[in-house]
Amino acid sequence: MTDKPISRFPVPSLDEMPEDIRDMLVGVQEKIGFIPNVFLTLAHRPDEFRAFVAYHDALMEKESGLTKAEREMIVVATSNDNNCQYCVVAHGAILRIRAKDPLIADQIAVNYRKADITPRQKAMLDFAMKVSNDAKSVCDEDLEVLHSHGFSDEDAWDIAGVTAFFGLSNRMANFTSMRPNDEFFMMGRK
Amino acid sequence: MTDKPISRFPVPSLDEMPEDIRDMLVGVQEKIGFIPNVFLTLAHRPDEFRAFVAYHDALMEKESGLTKAEREMIVVATSNDNNCQYCVVAHGAILRIRAKDPLIADQIAVNYRKADITPRQKAMLDFAMKVSNDAKSVCDEDLEVLHSHGFSDEDAWDIAGVTAFFGLSNRMANFTSMRPNDEFFMMGRK
Amino acid sequence: MTDKPISRFPVPSLDEMPEDIRDMLVGVQEKIGFIPNVFLTLAHRPDEFRAFVAYHDALMEKESGLTKAEREMIVVATSNDNNCQYCVVAHGAILRIRAKDPLIADQIAVNYRKADITPRQKAMLDFAMKVSNDAKSVCDEDLEVLHSHGFSDEDAWDIAGVTAFFGLSNRMANFTSMRPNDEFFMMGRK
Amino acid sequence: MTDKPISRFPVPSLDEMPEDIRDMLVGVQEKIGFIPNVFLTLAHRPDEFRAFVAYHDALMEKESGLTKAEREMIVVATSNDNNCQYCVVAHGAILRIRAKDPLIADQIAVNYRKADITPRQKAMLDFAMKVSNDAKSVCDEDLEVLHSHGFSDEDAWDIAGVTAFFGLSNRMANFTSMRPNDEFFMMGRK
Amino acid sequence: MTDKPISRFPVPSLDEMPEDIRDMLVGVQEKIGFIPNVFLTLAHRPDEFRAFVAYHDALMEKESGLTKAEREMIVVATSNDNNCQYCVVAHGAILRIRAKDPLIADQIAVNYRKADITPRQKAMLDFAMKVSNDAKSVCDEDLEVLHSHGFSDEDAWDIAGVTAFFGLSNRMANFTSMRPNDEFFMMGRK
Amino acid sequence: MTDKPISRFPVPSLDEMPEDIRDMLVGVQEKIGFIPNVFLTLAHRPDEFRAFVAYHDALMEKESGLTKAEREMIVVATSNDNNCQYCVVAHGAILRIRAKDPLIADQIAVNYRKADITPRQKAMLDFAMKVSNDAKSVCDEDLEVLHSHGFSDEDAWDIAGVTAFFGLSNRMANFTSMRPNDEFFMMGRK
Repeated sequence: MTDKPISRFPVPSLDEMPEDIRDMLVGVQEKIGFIPNVFLTLAHRPDEFRAFVAYHDALMEKESGLTKAEREMIVVATSNDNNCQYCVVAHGAILRIRAKDPLIADQIAVNYRKADITPRQKAMLDFAMKVSNDAKSVCDEDLEVLHSHGFSDEDAWDIAGVTAFFGLSNRMANFTSMRPNDEFFMMGRK
Repeated sequence: MTDKPISRFPVPSLDEMPEDIRDMLVGVQEKIGFIPNVFLTLAHRPDEFRAFVAYHDALMEKESGLTKAEREMIVVATSNDNNCQYCVVAHGAILRIRAKDPLIADQIAVNYRKADITPRQKAMLDFAMKVSNDAKSVCDEDLEVLHSHGFSDEDAWDIAGVTAFFGLSNRMANFTSMRPNDEFFMMGRK
Repeated sequence: MTDKPISRFPVPSLDEMPEDIRDMLVGVQEKIGFIPNVFLTLAHRPDEFRAFVAYHDALMEKESGLTKAEREMIVVATSNDNNCQYCVVAHGAILRIRAKDPLIADQIAVNYRKADITPRQKAMLDFAMKVSNDAKSVCDEDLEVLHSHGFSDEDAWDIAGVTAFFGLSNRMANFTSMRPNDEFFMMGRK
Repeated sequence: MTDKPISRFPVPSLDEMPEDIRDMLVGVQEKIGFIPNVFLTLAHRPDEFRAFVAYHDALMEKESGLTKAEREMIVVATSNDNNCQYCVVAHGAILRIRAKDPLIADQIAVNYRKADITPRQKAMLDFAMKVSNDAKSVCDEDLEVLHSHGFSDEDAWDIAGVTAFFGLSNRMANFTSMRPNDEFFMMGRK
Repeated sequence: MTDKPISRFPVPSLDEMPEDIRDMLVGVQEKIGFIPNVFLTLAHRPDEFRAFVAYHDALMEKESGLTKAEREMIVVATSNDNNCQYCVVAHGAILRIRAKDPLIADQIAVNYRKADITPRQKAMLDFAMKVSNDAKSVCDEDLEVLHSHGFSDEDAWDIAGVTAFFGLSNRMANFTSMRPNDEFFMMGRK
Repeated sequence: MTDKPISRFPVPSLDEMPEDIRDMLVGVQEKIGFIPNVFLTLAHRPDEFRAFVAYHDALMEKESGLTKAEREMIVVATSNDNNCQYCVVAHGAILRIRAKDPLIADQIAVNYRKADITPRQKAMLDFAMKVSNDAKSVCDEDLEVLHSHGFSDEDAWDIAGVTAFFGLSNRMANFTSMRPNDEFFMMGRK
């Protein structure tokens, strides 16, 4: 634990939060032993908090042609490209756990093109980078490349959706100076 | 009306939609005479639809130190910078109506620095551009500039939140090739 | 009409102008009902004014493998990419009239890749963007792509010439803070 | 002399040219001993040729608060930034002659910030770079910086005008693969 | 250990290497338990190997106004900006050890502006980023900022030298697809 | 000769230098008539000087599938792209001499795509530009393009190595404000 501020904005204590948010955070704390700072930061704005969590879960918890580890790969690659410390550190931890691979998150964060991933996963991340940095140019040919790697149109939506959602998250984390919990740095490294 | 596709993805008919979404869209149609294509496009994914609308309303309908017109200025400036046809056209219409000014949306879309807006509004849009394109560098000095124009920290969050949310929206609209409804082009031009 | 300044520089009255320029502007006013601000702004420098108009007409009024509407498409796409408010608004109006299409200008301005244009016109605008942003790399392969869409080498010159000329115009308009006439915003919208 | 093509387009012989253009080129040849390839290349399009020359002369031959050498500095700095071989080589030669300095053109082409020029000239070239690469952001503060170095508003127009005109020229030269005459490389080097 | 290739090029075995290089690598192996892959990769070119190591040591082992940890901060920040997996992972490990801080390397890699470092160290990394990405514009004002944080001119050289040297290293590592040793990922995390 | 400073840092006189460096510089002076300022500038740091020269010679003096002129082409193209006045001027001179061509250096500096070089040399410079500006994306396909022009893998290393080394050199020259000797400007122009 550190005493460094976790957000540029006031962070409510658990008993200041609306009941549904407090219940959710208590549940998370019981499950993983701490409350990720993204929740504490966004709890400053309960309505945005609820929409953020709902959007996150709609993309990250659903059935998909992408594994949960693959979705975390998108988060980690996009977030380093957007220089978002919170998301690289926190989702790097989740990726290590989901992929059961202690090296993969750091590899993907710095340069996914050189990471221990499949050509299909590289195509997935190439497309995510295009959505993140050059969405105006996304075209049929991009979807054909995805198809050639076995992705469906619905999978393409999942890639784009995760990329776009974490683009939002990256911007809010950098704006609020959201600090990653110390616990994330070591998770999944064995 | 046009027969051009409004999305790269299947668009559900009203009776294929979950009841809550259908009710909402019928309500919109009754109020403004047509259903904006963003709703029809996103209805393909009901959970994401609900989170999207909730997030939108949490930012755009709330009380704020920014007027509703000012929030639409952020949407229009950011969306043209991201080359998002749907959002520039649709929110350009809303901006004209909210600001009661038929020229303002086109001015801001192309180059807000030359638009008929106040120095305070220019500072707001400068900050939105930084959040959109260089969030990694947002720092205390940026907030001080906002303060010097009378914005509070909460206003800064509103600017950043609207920018980040429409960054998501712009990427999804470009990915899905979302088509603006013909109706938007003329709205608010008198 | 507005009382906002139309240029950062002094704007001569009609009777202060050299006779040939005054005659031309009076002719324009009689024809379309107002004098476009680009003429009033550039009249501050009569020699440059005359060369500007001559260059414009040599490219935009000549016989060409490009229709006049297509040439305006190039102006609108290039000018939004250069964030030139005057040229997007004024030539957007001309494009709507030439193409007899009230939607096409806004579509092309924001993202021509998603506009209601032909693949040939998209190739034309792709080439214009390359001339505008990466002329150093223009090569034989680019001309072959144009040929494959039925463009001749002379048509390629026309595309490059219009792009390069309006690149000049965009820079002068942004430098002088040239204001689009209010009349342009509604022209051609039905 | 070389037998390399000087343009991607047909180059008319002197007797194929309209009389006014032929007379002008014969005059140039008598004066400097050769015909610069820019004239031969653009003579393919007589109307554009005439407007180009008129625009050039309106900016480069007029009385100005900028010396002729200073105007050539703008051409050389802008043209290297736009990677235009013709303009760097040809106007580098003219700059060496006008400034009576065999080193200045190469210094400015590669990095004017490290060239043997005055702070006033550096401010002039900083402004030219902004007009060339970021005209949308040109603002009152930029003109105040110029004023603080003794430039008038009319001088600012001259800087912007030269920059914008050679931006056009750079794009046409790269598009046509215009080849600098061999003679230019040694001119003014003593 | 992994059986993934560590370089796109042949990697000599210890007994194929020149004696001085072999002796050095055996010494490293005895000290830290493994041979960093940068040495094995560059041993393919003995002369470049020797110059690389000599340059590295001249910058990283010397007395300096920068601590060794601070020099590693420059390496990590620059290398992530250049997307160099080898250098971020290997020098991230060294930084954690030198700074006795398990969090600092990941923080700096992703966004040093939000890391637990001093304003002086932020100024150091701002300058390193300018040398890495915009060296042409480095000027007296940049050195004055460094001076205001207590850096001498010699310290400025050290910052620039480390940045420039690892720019070389980053490019070679990405070119050769140099793989970081598995051991580095966990070093210094406690 | 000029009395302009050749470096932002102190330049040692010959008798202040370590003997090995003095001997080397005296040798150079006897051979070409002057001491290139890069040596005088770097002599401020003898250990870095020695490593720099050793690295330079390991790449530039070795046997290679690239001629010495071709290696200088890489230096000139990369250095102009990095806006390094010293390296463009000094190595431009060396290139003119090595290639026995008075025009080639200026052509390549400004835009190698339009220079009098072979397709093989253009591919070499395309690859150098990728290593210089986008090394993270270098991949097998890039090497295949080089192979198709007759380059071996070892030649690819030579291209990458020269590019990376002069990237270091360019950054140090811009940081130190290293001034090219007047002698270089005319060398090899006949």
